[in-house]
Amino acid sequence: MADGAATEDDFGAFVPGERFRIDGTPGGPLAGLTFAAKDLFDVAGRVTGGGNPDWARVNPVPIRHAWAVQRLLDAGAALIGKTITDEVSLGILGENPFDGTARNPRAPGRVPGGSSSGSAVAVAAGLCDTALGTDTGGSVRVPASFCGLYGIRPTHGRLDLTGMMSQAPTSDTTGWFARDAATFARVSAVMLGEAIPDELPRRLIIADDAFAVADAAAAVALQPLVERLGRLLGMVEHEAMAPPGLVAWANAQRTIQPSEAWQTFKDWVDRVNPRMQFSVARNLAAAAVITDAERARAQSVRDAARARMRALLPPGTILCQPTTPFPAPLCGQRLSALDPLRERITRLACHGGLTGVPQVVIPGCTVDGLPIGLSIIGGPGTDASLVAVARALAD
Amino acid sequence: MADGAATEDDFGAFVPGERFRIDGTPGGPLAGLTFAAKDLFDVAGRVTGGGNPDWARVNPVPIRHAWAVQRLLDAGAALIGKTITDEVSLGILGENPFDGTARNPRAPGRVPGGSSSGSAVAVAAGLCDTALGTDTGGSVRVPASFCGLYGIRPTHGRLDLTGMMSQAPTSDTTGWFARDAATFARVSAVMLGEAIPDELPRRLIIADDAFAVADAAAAVALQPLVERLGRLLGMVEHEAMAPPGLVAWANAQRTIQPSEAWQTFKDWVDRVNPRMQFSVARNLAAAAVITDAERARAQSVRDAARARMRALLPPGTILCQPTTPFPAPLCGQRLSALDPLRERITRLACHGGLTGVPQVVIPGCTVDGLPIGLSIIGGPGTDASLVAVARALAD
Repeated sequence: MADGAATEDDFGAFVPGERFRIDGTPGGPLAGLTFAAKDLFDVAGRVTGGGNPDWARVNPVPIRHAWAVQRLLDAGAALIGKTITDEVSLGILGENPFDGTARNPRAPGRVPGGSSSGSAVAVAAGLCDTALGTDTGGSVRVPASFCGLYGIRPTHGRLDLTGMMSQAPTSDTTGWFARDAATFARVSAVMLGEAIPDELPRRLIIADDAFAVADAAAAVALQPLVERLGRLLGMVEHEAMAPPGLVAWANAQRTIQPSEAWQTFKDWVDRVNPRMQFSVARNLAAAAVITDAERARAQSVRDAARARMRALLPPGTILCQPTTPFPAPLCGQRLSALDPLRERITRLACHGGLTGVPQVVIPGCTVDGLPIGLSIIGGPGTDASLVAVARALAD
Repeated sequence: MADGAATEDDFGAFVPGERFRIDGTPGGPLAGLTFAAKDLFDVAGRVTGGGNPDWARVNPVPIRHAWAVQRLLDAGAALIGKTITDEVSLGILGENPFDGTARNPRAPGRVPGGSSSGSAVAVAAGLCDTALGTDTGGSVRVPASFCGLYGIRPTHGRLDLTGMMSQAPTSDTTGWFARDAATFARVSAVMLGEAIPDELPRRLIIADDAFAVADAAAAVALQPLVERLGRLLGMVEHEAMAPPGLVAWANAQRTIQPSEAWQTFKDWVDRVNPRMQFSVARNLAAAAVITDAERARAQSVRDAARARMRALLPPGTILCQPTTPFPAPLCGQRLSALDPLRERITRLACHGGLTGVPQVVIPGCTVDGLPIGLSIIGGPGTDASLVAVARALAD
């Protein structure tokens, strides 16, 4: 990375005042790499700001690093700062009125995607080699797509989330970004605690229902990469991933995730009456009144979705889909313009939190010069295999 | 007022950076007096901040003074600054996390009341002689009660609201505060454009239903003032002001006022996605989904309430009630503790916006040393007569 350039324009990726350096253990597998951590991860001695001044104000300074931060430091990577997040991770676009909106280096004037916005921007801008994000409802996958990066949402429950600020526990994961496949594989092996295999899956399912959610231009732009992927794996089939419809899955996730988020944040909200963007407060207020009956219905959709993904993705089979329905939207749009965009993004991202399967975002495609990612998804535990596919595609 | 003391401790009454001086026209009836204006009133060349940074940021700097500001300047009073308000006037307690919470000089550690919090505090602290507030749902009356001041909510529609930030047009009014009855009467005569009469009403109705809403200690504390008022006027009767119940009136006002507030602010909210306290955003979000049927039901309650107040308050009759059910609550309480308090405050304040009648708050009573105001209410247009009663009571 270009240390000199970093001080000249950091693209607003870092929380103000939160650039620093903590060296990793010498001689580890990630020696020579630098990383940043989303401001939801504890770094000993520094406030975990969570993208909201009233979160930062009332929470104690952590005395130890989050598991993920410690993992990368132990492997030899150096931590260079904490990056901007949507408020308490409740956002998918990356516009934060408190800490600022990190600027998307690959799509000027457009949102970086969120909530791991600063981590994606820091990597995309070359300020560090990798960066930690969190993904509950798309918060690594969406900024990876919008910023033209590799990114991963690991299998739910696989990594230790100690020291990572929670949102919705049954959907929360720790993910990371990289600009190139080799770095992505190197970091992934450390984080997953598993070598990236040489053997690849042999069967690809193209999720037709997911491609149908995307803009036609986005689906067209991803086609060459889908074809390369198909040639790499061998067998290609077309199938709908969500038999009841992606809208049904999205609605279930939009019930389960906010319900859990309200449980996570309600005491803080009650105690502090925090300042928030209207859209964040509105969504929390709506979450507060979700009923047990709605939750029960959503849970039955979730159970069926999990069974569906396991059946669809036996060992050796992966699925591909557009990560997002379109490249990064313009910054500063009206809520009424953004709400339908958020809804479509959720349709393509909901299965992650809903079913817990791992997903890797592969960059390389553009629509009118704007990045958009192709995603590959495997059954639970196939994280390393998905990374292997991403690496093989780059060769 | 004590100019020297003002610079030593301004009780956080003023918007940061908004203390200044604009002299009034020499020789007017208010010559020698100073006043402050709530940050909802335009002052030429200064941003009307509205208590919210994202309101201040996107609204143009006014080129002329609001009518009420000009009125006081023309009468010879000098404007010394702009005072803190709840965010876009949506609050009744006066806790503003952006501009700060003005400190109640009469009740340390307790809220000042809102939304005209800074104006009440500036007058109560002796920083100026009078101050402009706005009252839509209680925003002059409540801080007058909590800070031990005279205050008025004039007859709806009586004063020119040009240059005053609107919230709910069918309820919005301009009001003002004073520490002593003489100043209150002097300012009121100018603002109302009408001499304060010597003749007083001759019949007092004690609103039993309103006293029943108050804490027992508050009702007891107000009793001596009620008795003096009764002796002053002559005839005393007891009656319930709201035949369908104050809760029914409060529910109607809590439908009409937020509906109109949403109309007032929805374009701004949509365009800016403003930062707000959770409680403010929550209430606006709830307002956005009020139905036409709910509005129609509330309007029929309003029509009946207006007829009731006209019937109850013929010329020569006024009503008295506790302004608030209790003195100022402690600062920094949980939302879940404050919400029931807000609800009870609204039960005693709702008739103002709902029926448009004028109301004057009279200080002088305390509960455990904390001020609480007695309110007198007359039929539409009897503003000067109510001020006359307040003045006569002080003699």
